[in-house]
Amino acid sequence: MKNQLEISGVKEECGVFGIYDIDGKDVAPSVYYGLCSLQHRGQESCGIVVSDTKGPRGNISYHKDLGLVGEVFKEENLSRLHGDLGIGHVRYSTTGASTRENAQPLVLNYIKGTLALAHNGNLVNAEQLKEELVYGGAIFHTTTDSEMIAYFIARERVHTASVEEAVLRTARKIKGAYGLVIMSPRKLVAVRDPFGLKPLCLGKRDNAYVVASESCALSAVGAELIRDIEPGEMITVTAEGIRSNKELQQKERAHCIFEYIYFARLDSRMDGVKVYDARIRAGRALAKAYPAKADMVTGVPESGLTAARGYAMEAGLPFEAAFYKNSYIGRTFIKPTQQERESSVRLKLNVLESVVKDKRIVLVDDSIVRGTTMANLIQMLKGAGAKEVHVRISAPPFLYPCYYGTDVPSNDQLIASSHTEEEIRQMIGADSLGYMKIEDLQTMVGDMGICKACFDNRYPIDPGK
Amino acid sequence: MKNQLEISGVKEECGVFGIYDIDGKDVAPSVYYGLCSLQHRGQESCGIVVSDTKGPRGNISYHKDLGLVGEVFKEENLSRLHGDLGIGHVRYSTTGASTRENAQPLVLNYIKGTLALAHNGNLVNAEQLKEELVYGGAIFHTTTDSEMIAYFIARERVHTASVEEAVLRTARKIKGAYGLVIMSPRKLVAVRDPFGLKPLCLGKRDNAYVVASESCALSAVGAELIRDIEPGEMITVTAEGIRSNKELQQKERAHCIFEYIYFARLDSRMDGVKVYDARIRAGRALAKAYPAKADMVTGVPESGLTAARGYAMEAGLPFEAAFYKNSYIGRTFIKPTQQERESSVRLKLNVLESVVKDKRIVLVDDSIVRGTTMANLIQMLKGAGAKEVHVRISAPPFLYPCYYGTDVPSNDQLIASSHTEEEIRQMIGADSLGYMKIEDLQTMVGDMGICKACFDNRYPIDPGK
Amino acid sequence: MKNQLEISGVKEECGVFGIYDIDGKDVAPSVYYGLCSLQHRGQESCGIVVSDTKGPRGNISYHKDLGLVGEVFKEENLSRLHGDLGIGHVRYSTTGASTRENAQPLVLNYIKGTLALAHNGNLVNAEQLKEELVYGGAIFHTTTDSEMIAYFIARERVHTASVEEAVLRTARKIKGAYGLVIMSPRKLVAVRDPFGLKPLCLGKRDNAYVVASESCALSAVGAELIRDIEPGEMITVTAEGIRSNKELQQKERAHCIFEYIYFARLDSRMDGVKVYDARIRAGRALAKAYPAKADMVTGVPESGLTAARGYAMEAGLPFEAAFYKNSYIGRTFIKPTQQERESSVRLKLNVLESVVKDKRIVLVDDSIVRGTTMANLIQMLKGAGAKEVHVRISAPPFLYPCYYGTDVPSNDQLIASSHTEEEIRQMIGADSLGYMKIEDLQTMVGDMGICKACFDNRYPIDPGK
Amino acid sequence: MKNQLEISGVKEECGVFGIYDIDGKDVAPSVYYGLCSLQHRGQESCGIVVSDTKGPRGNISYHKDLGLVGEVFKEENLSRLHGDLGIGHVRYSTTGASTRENAQPLVLNYIKGTLALAHNGNLVNAEQLKEELVYGGAIFHTTTDSEMIAYFIARERVHTASVEEAVLRTARKIKGAYGLVIMSPRKLVAVRDPFGLKPLCLGKRDNAYVVASESCALSAVGAELIRDIEPGEMITVTAEGIRSNKELQQKERAHCIFEYIYFARLDSRMDGVKVYDARIRAGRALAKAYPAKADMVTGVPESGLTAARGYAMEAGLPFEAAFYKNSYIGRTFIKPTQQERESSVRLKLNVLESVVKDKRIVLVDDSIVRGTTMANLIQMLKGAGAKEVHVRISAPPFLYPCYYGTDVPSNDQLIASSHTEEEIRQMIGADSLGYMKIEDLQTMVGDMGICKACFDNRYPIDPGK
Repeated sequence: MKNQLEISGVKEECGVFGIYDIDGKDVAPSVYYGLCSLQHRGQESCGIVVSDTKGPRGNISYHKDLGLVGEVFKEENLSRLHGDLGIGHVRYSTTGASTRENAQPLVLNYIKGTLALAHNGNLVNAEQLKEELVYGGAIFHTTTDSEMIAYFIARERVHTASVEEAVLRTARKIKGAYGLVIMSPRKLVAVRDPFGLKPLCLGKRDNAYVVASESCALSAVGAELIRDIEPGEMITVTAEGIRSNKELQQKERAHCIFEYIYFARLDSRMDGVKVYDARIRAGRALAKAYPAKADMVTGVPESGLTAARGYAMEAGLPFEAAFYKNSYIGRTFIKPTQQERESSVRLKLNVLESVVKDKRIVLVDDSIVRGTTMANLIQMLKGAGAKEVHVRISAPPFLYPCYYGTDVPSNDQLIASSHTEEEIRQMIGADSLGYMKIEDLQTMVGDMGICKACFDNRYPIDPGK
Repeated sequence: MKNQLEISGVKEECGVFGIYDIDGKDVAPSVYYGLCSLQHRGQESCGIVVSDTKGPRGNISYHKDLGLVGEVFKEENLSRLHGDLGIGHVRYSTTGASTRENAQPLVLNYIKGTLALAHNGNLVNAEQLKEELVYGGAIFHTTTDSEMIAYFIARERVHTASVEEAVLRTARKIKGAYGLVIMSPRKLVAVRDPFGLKPLCLGKRDNAYVVASESCALSAVGAELIRDIEPGEMITVTAEGIRSNKELQQKERAHCIFEYIYFARLDSRMDGVKVYDARIRAGRALAKAYPAKADMVTGVPESGLTAARGYAMEAGLPFEAAFYKNSYIGRTFIKPTQQERESSVRLKLNVLESVVKDKRIVLVDDSIVRGTTMANLIQMLKGAGAKEVHVRISAPPFLYPCYYGTDVPSNDQLIASSHTEEEIRQMIGADSLGYMKIEDLQTMVGDMGICKACFDNRYPIDPGK
Repeated sequence: MKNQLEISGVKEECGVFGIYDIDGKDVAPSVYYGLCSLQHRGQESCGIVVSDTKGPRGNISYHKDLGLVGEVFKEENLSRLHGDLGIGHVRYSTTGASTRENAQPLVLNYIKGTLALAHNGNLVNAEQLKEELVYGGAIFHTTTDSEMIAYFIARERVHTASVEEAVLRTARKIKGAYGLVIMSPRKLVAVRDPFGLKPLCLGKRDNAYVVASESCALSAVGAELIRDIEPGEMITVTAEGIRSNKELQQKERAHCIFEYIYFARLDSRMDGVKVYDARIRAGRALAKAYPAKADMVTGVPESGLTAARGYAMEAGLPFEAAFYKNSYIGRTFIKPTQQERESSVRLKLNVLESVVKDKRIVLVDDSIVRGTTMANLIQMLKGAGAKEVHVRISAPPFLYPCYYGTDVPSNDQLIASSHTEEEIRQMIGADSLGYMKIEDLQTMVGDMGICKACFDNRYPIDPGK
Repeated sequence: MKNQLEISGVKEECGVFGIYDIDGKDVAPSVYYGLCSLQHRGQESCGIVVSDTKGPRGNISYHKDLGLVGEVFKEENLSRLHGDLGIGHVRYSTTGASTRENAQPLVLNYIKGTLALAHNGNLVNAEQLKEELVYGGAIFHTTTDSEMIAYFIARERVHTASVEEAVLRTARKIKGAYGLVIMSPRKLVAVRDPFGLKPLCLGKRDNAYVVASESCALSAVGAELIRDIEPGEMITVTAEGIRSNKELQQKERAHCIFEYIYFARLDSRMDGVKVYDARIRAGRALAKAYPAKADMVTGVPESGLTAARGYAMEAGLPFEAAFYKNSYIGRTFIKPTQQERESSVRLKLNVLESVVKDKRIVLVDDSIVRGTTMANLIQMLKGAGAKEVHVRISAPPFLYPCYYGTDVPSNDQLIASSHTEEEIRQMIGADSLGYMKIEDLQTMVGDMGICKACFDNRYPIDPGK
């Protein structure tokens, strides 16, 4: 009976943004710029919902569609979104399928009028929750966990005095990772999962409060970072100001380490740690664990560049940019087929011969998936005259799935799941190879509680599988 | 408390289509051609959902969007819709607002997997039903009655053995007009409201059963009309064949007369009456009630042409086509502004001088809304040499709103609601004017039970206003 | 050497429009509405060029693209076209190929600044002219005759005092059919070929002069038809008014009969003959030549309707509309494949059973091309109960190509080129069949000089083939 | 009389590509990838023309439009371009106006069939040439110099034995900068202006010859750089192989220094000098001329990064990446208005606080235009804790216009044309400011002849102004 209720494989790796300008200014442009700054967290679809809190009840307008923020929003549709309260969402593309229906924020009518919700994360008890709902006669328009969260809020709202109370009750039922931003016509509510698996931070600009998945979105809109929203904390912003509720808090924390390794933007700061610093420390740790006799250090753009700098600092070697990256090769690029002589890697990246000729090179990246790209890059470096290429990976190999909404490559895609390091080294043609040690993950971020289940199989929340 | 729950003003005047090919052939092309034939019932949006009944559970695919059938569906997206069971919908455009979310068929996940629903009609107890649902914690993605129907089906399905049983229980709760086509992964269910306000008919092509709002859609796909689905009847088609359930039937009937006057396609047959014949009879009745000393009869294309023929037959006068209609003036046409010398009417219709010169003309149409178009046409006819123009309207003046989903013009748009016939005659510049008498509406369709509330304020179902 | 210079097979069947408002009002909307009225003459591409004659030299703006007038022009691009002098063009689609470059009006820079040109027709000495030009070093951007005309005008303009003089000299060189509208920054020039093969007429609205391929475009913009531009006449409109030049005139005339049979709009008047009247006379002539024992006459929409009326008048039989035509089946419609049960004809046209049941029917159309559509229609009529179907064609069979730019079906497409009338009758399943007699073509239009070369192989201008 | 012939202000800064695969393989994908690699040279429009040299005469197909290569070309249109010989073009956007007509390659019919032409550069005698042509009766479809070149080739072709000969004769008439790629149905011709103002290089891949504006395009398609095409050299590729003609050569050379400063891709090599090396040398020269007491060096992404590295090397200071660049901020991005609090600069670039805090920083870029962006960046650096910011510019101030097709900012846009260095320093808020000395331009590229007229007003070819 259980398996009839399908849970979509669509990953919930996304970015959320919310703003309430108590002075009553239009916020749609700020949501737009905030989403532009969170675009790296999701490129499949995006959306903005605003409410004119001074207007009559339910004066809500929105626009969402498949595409990048800069493609979906144009002067003409952005200028139609009037209101001093707004939320936005960018969604990660993991499949090519058309999923316009899954675009967020969700906008729903319920007992109290309209509710909008933007969610980053994944629930581990989604199947049980869905079962509970469908046995109560629920219908779903999307295949997202987010709609289930919305449902529980709506159900609880029937018996509660406020939307916050309904959100709190819902938060007690759902298990998993979430950074949630919820908007009723006159209230902005943001809540973060008790383990702090997903990031969420709070900022201020004049008399406007801003919440966002990452602090870079605050900078983008000219807001100051006040602090991270704490794990298990719920923030409510109304015309009267801001309130915090920490009923859901617990002691144990498990911040997703993958945000620091790869996902978050280099200029963001999360839970007190700058992403840049964490990556520098990752490179330093690599250099200590796997030194190399080399003339220079370089990184694969953009994913390996910062760890490469850290490696270079620790090793006392010069850091050099060995590759030119063609920024015009975008999503709609037609990839060369097998028959054609051009290479996708070479079209995106080209070696700067002057930099690498006759050099022994340490090449840093954050992961090796199939190994083909890395093999190509090593070949290009050697073709341009590099004498040796020592590959260093600024994370351990992924070996276990993520149940909290981060899209780590699956086992069958990963060369590391079926080959030894020495086999991989030979396959990619490197002169040496070193992966970061699991114990150094903690080094990256200091004494923060982290989730590194994808490396060590220790899940802070039982995924029930 | 009550008014917080908004009911959208979007009219539910639409067309529905369903087909189950028991021999297992792909039905998406037939749904496409069926919808092309029902396009006159709705031009705002359209959609097709299909299920591969032989495939694994829930193997459902769909596509829907704003636009005409020929705009929304292209080889590339139509060819991706595989399945032997399918339903489709065309929706009427009453507002310019973007309502992509309201496009049908609705596709939902519920306790039994997937459910798709296409609805033509409007409920009169929608507010009460919505209140009941939201107090149970329901959330709504659309502003349509149709989503409420889907909700009740889902709720009932929890406690019932089959989708038909859930549909029946739902039908007992909802009051209003509906032609409903519902699809579960392996079942096609069609149900018609007990008064028969909305049309729905049944056809067959080899081993495939077809349901549609109008018989013209059966012809289009090469199916034979078996019969109308009876008011209050529910038809179920499965791999085993077809079943009928008449538990909801009642004695009283109230077929919408507006379908015969204007809305249905000329070549359709509904509840035993050919639309063409009804319009001919309307014209004949007009001629008896309001004869005219004239040389010829003509009609406003396309709405007045058939009644004009009927008038001509009864009056023993020649019927002539006095206007050329430019079929390229479509939806995206830029209308002349007040400043410009061109006239919208003249761009769409031009008089054939040879036909009208020196003639006394009877000009038939099915309604006069603001009167400006009619005044223009009369001016054009006289400008081309017509000596007299006697206007005859093949329906009484609309005076009361329709609560069952038909988009009759509202009072403030209607010249007839604030002027006498003589005033109207003068305003449009006609030599005489006659509206069909209310008693002749019955003449059009024989002894069938009809709803003519928009003319006489007698509503078969209490609208509760 | 000769054959290296390719002449495109693209047919020059098009519509042209020009207007100069001496009072200085913007004309782009009028060009737009004029082109909407000429849309039947060409659906492939369209364009508008305007000049602000009061502005600085060469203040010309334009927009053109593939598509219908209503698709190519939107408020946003139309409102950017400012000027009191403008010309426009609609082009006929004979191939599916992308020919954006061939869209007209042509807009060119030449010795005197800018020149725009819109051309309806085809030259028979295009190859010789092109040879002359290329041997002088000319380059061509399009594959149209029109560019050659532009070239000669530019060449002549070097040595002449005015653009009219250059146009006249060019007209002496080119042989063939043309309705030409030419615009320099402050002059509108219109010229018609000496035989009058292509139509061109002149109208006036207040202080604005209008030229157009057909008079229906004058009506559309509220202009009065002054008269046809005479064969061999050149009209020039400037701020000072209008001038006529008849130097090119000759005695012999050869107005294209195909305009009256099919191509021109029913409400146009050309060279003194109303198109409607000509088609009525065609039907009458058919009825005299091929009477039938029948109960009613009908026509294939829209091409056969008016001749059918003429037949009915002459025969004293009632004319009836036997078919319902689905006006939503447009250009982007996906046609049924062989495998599918639906029929393209049935999707476009459906029989009104009440009209045809138990009737002996005369069915009129203007041509039979492959015969498949006609066979389908006869089958549909008989399927709906028609007892007999007598087919009458309101033109003789096309047997010879048109070299003057009219797209008559080619021999290999035409059933008539390889079968006797009796064979065709059997193939289409008609009870009798009659084509108009060649001598009756003259009957249609009175004593006007006509070109009927496609029927009788007598070409007024030697096509040189 | 002269000024009536307008020469468009559209700049001819572009990229060209050509390939002939003598083994007969389809080249369209290679042209596509080549253009992707040249996209930095022009983002307004692009086009590809191919010829099937084994097919019948004139078997040419093409596609071009406004937009980036990845937007204009899709699988469906690229796969329709069959041929073993092809050329392509990317055009620089200097105006927002729609200039679809100006998109290249130009495709023309002329005496010998079809000719396609792609041009990078600008002529200084365009007005005289145009006058000569229009007095011969020429007509122009575009407002580009390129069409004039095509015209002269066509004219000369009438009297010459081959297209090469016609190109040579044309080259003798035109004065200015050009990298030209010309294609007749079975020949690829490439020619470079005698001063070598514009770049053009030659490569080989198996049995295919490739020409391109930059060597990076050769790498992209897997071709080896053979050598630069020499100034004044013409290369012809046919089925028989490759020929060189140096009749146009002269002694004096004047390679555009702006290519090395900014325009060319970092991984290209031009006239024997690697662009990367030139920029490193620029940075070194700056460091010698304007040393600074600083803790680190950084560059404005991407324009200042490499010179910053050179500065750091010479100064013995660490190079650091101080900014995060948001690569999703593209062309369609809606820029903040004055009213909005967000800043365009901050949305594109954000400071990495960890890198700059408490540091004395050398900030390198290649130019200062209005100064507002630089002021913003300095403010951002100081806001993030930088103690001092010393600005170094890796080129002298632009003071004179470029007549050869490079889009250098005009005087009224340039802060340097109306302010002293000290004024600029104060306006941007820098602690010190240094521009590269004019004499160091030569240092960048060794003893190559260069054009640096935009800095020193010494034009190698008299612009005639």
